Amino acid sequence: MRIAVDAMGGDNAPKEIVLGSLQAAEARKDVTIVLYGDEDAIKAVIEGPTPENVEIVHAPDKILSEDDPVKAVRSKRDSSMVMAARAVRNGEADALISAGNTGALLTSGLLVVGRMKGVERPALMAALPNLKTIGDHVLLIDCGANAESKASYLSQYAVMASAYARAVLKKANPTVGLLNNGTEENKGNDLSKEAHGLLKVNDRINFVGNVEAREILNGAADIVVADGFTGNAVLKSIEGTAGSLMKLIKSSIMNGGVTSKVGGLLLKNTLKDMVNQLDLDQAGGGILFGVKAPVLKAHGSSNATSVYHTILQAETIVDAGVIDELAGAFEAEVALAKAKADAEA
Amino acid sequence: MRIAVDAMGGDNAPKEIVLGSLQAAEARKDVTIVLYGDEDAIKAVIEGPTPENVEIVHAPDKILSEDDPVKAVRSKRDSSMVMAARAVRNGEADALISAGNTGALLTSGLLVVGRMKGVERPALMAALPNLKTIGDHVLLIDCGANAESKASYLSQYAVMASAYARAVLKKANPTVGLLNNGTEENKGNDLSKEAHGLLKVNDRINFVGNVEAREILNGAADIVVADGFTGNAVLKSIEGTAGSLMKLIKSSIMNGGVTSKVGGLLLKNTLKDMVNQLDLDQAGGGILFGVKAPVLKAHGSSNATSVYHTILQAETIVDAGVIDELAGAFEAEVALAKAKADAEA
Repeated sequence: MRIAVDAMGGDNAPKEIVLGSLQAAEARKDVTIVLYGDEDAIKAVIEGPTPENVEIVHAPDKILSEDDPVKAVRSKRDSSMVMAARAVRNGEADALISAGNTGALLTSGLLVVGRMKGVERPALMAALPNLKTIGDHVLLIDCGANAESKASYLSQYAVMASAYARAVLKKANPTVGLLNNGTEENKGNDLSKEAHGLLKVNDRINFVGNVEAREILNGAADIVVADGFTGNAVLKSIEGTAGSLMKLIKSSIMNGGVTSKVGGLLLKNTLKDMVNQLDLDQAGGGILFGVKAPVLKAHGSSNATSVYHTILQAETIVDAGVIDELAGAFEAEVALAKAKADAEA
Repeated sequence: MRIAVDAMGGDNAPKEIVLGSLQAAEARKDVTIVLYGDEDAIKAVIEGPTPENVEIVHAPDKILSEDDPVKAVRSKRDSSMVMAARAVRNGEADALISAGNTGALLTSGLLVVGRMKGVERPALMAALPNLKTIGDHVLLIDCGANAESKASYLSQYAVMASAYARAVLKKANPTVGLLNNGTEENKGNDLSKEAHGLLKVNDRINFVGNVEAREILNGAADIVVADGFTGNAVLKSIEGTAGSLMKLIKSSIMNGGVTSKVGGLLLKNTLKDMVNQLDLDQAGGGILFGVKAPVLKAHGSSNATSVYHTILQAETIVDAGVIDELAGAFEAEVALAKAKADAEA
């Protein structure tokens, strides 16, 4: 297996990206990691001899976080991200990872790696911690690939995330909920009402009805489907609230006098465990589904550890054959629709 | 001033509603609180003689949390909520408070109290704590009154919340942000792009551009405007994440061994202060703006303290003349539009 890594994307690139890749290469001898980026900069991080299962492909250009996504992908053909995406499209690598410009990575997935046949819109999926069951995750899809959505997209998102939950999370019959502003069936806006109707009759998934945003972290469903605008707002609300609270706890302890400081010291390990449980980086990055190969987005602030986890996650997805399963499912749908249309003609 | 309170709405009605009302009556001798509900049940809570500035109006019926909002408001004309709303419409009370069925309260506001002239859609506003500045609040509007929205509604929401921020929060020139999935001007779905254009040229407000959900609690703007579907999802995400985290902290401390328990004990007061800072009940309930009088929604789980705070908040809004100011502003807009149309004809 070969995994293409954009070594120049993210706030801590190339250093943390390369270090995380080296850790993954050490842990997985049968996986070859191909680093795309400035050769000298990458070699400066590696220091000693390059491990056997690490390759470096020199990319003279890179996409910046402030670049316009579509323009950048079209014009910067020699950037580390686009070169890595091209390698995946050409079958030279099995998965693509970047911590760089999210919009550009989605565009690279769609335009360079290529949309899967039968998929209307690829979508971004995030794995959030299920705070009721340690180690379990809730999948939120779409987290922002498509600001404007149709109900039929949401029904396809449910199929994609279900395949992932079965193959990677080993859930035999994962439950799917629709993000909505009430649990009753008639709740919502026009889009969510229509999506509810489609999800209900979708026999590829285990639909359990509407889920309110406040129940996501309580594991109300294994998978929560949303339009990309709302899903993005929900993901950022959760991350923002968790981040603000952790800061508030820290400053409350520091400003709370001696008793409070001693208490904080005694609680240090407990709080650290809690932060780990919440750590979105540990859960790996977001995954773009609906393209011909796994495209993984690591957080912009990724360190070596989160890059390492993202690479292992990519390995698991490739090993589990999620993409082939989805390609088969969506192609079968296309064939079925064509046969129906032919029969009616 | 007279404030109409639905004594039968909410999980802890009538007990906590009546107790909170008594506290408010004690603290504000010049405010008369009119309790609508089952007379015997209310009197059983009061025990001694009814205070001079508390009145009881017997309502033989009540709206249940599982009732269909529109049907219930239309058919249960003798319910505590609808009777209280009718009193406000008839000028017998200056504000309406309920902890009951949110949809029914919004419907009562719209159909019984009545929409303000020139307002397209009333909207629900919540005051969230600004975690960067203790005591400060961020106003989120619409939190769910309208699942389906037009851009012009959002522009009016900004005017409503700005009037509140000036009159009640004493902010001379409150900043308004638009909830969006990126800070750049061209970001968003069709609705948010159109709303951005309208907010930018709205000279009644101080628009500062797009705000991402993760920055709301950091006080990125005094007011954050959103469509009701997304606003509802964001509010519930924030409440859900904060609630889940507090539970996790508690259980982490309890399951963390002796050191952790002692640490938790020492931190008790600090954590309590933090919970208070976060307490959404303390900030008062949501306010329905765009109707002819203040309509305040207290949390369904309201206790006496939160009812007390909601009543004081209603008093402040009435005293500050927010509704008159808004009525003037929207009527002036209607007159201007009419004059323009006449001139063109």
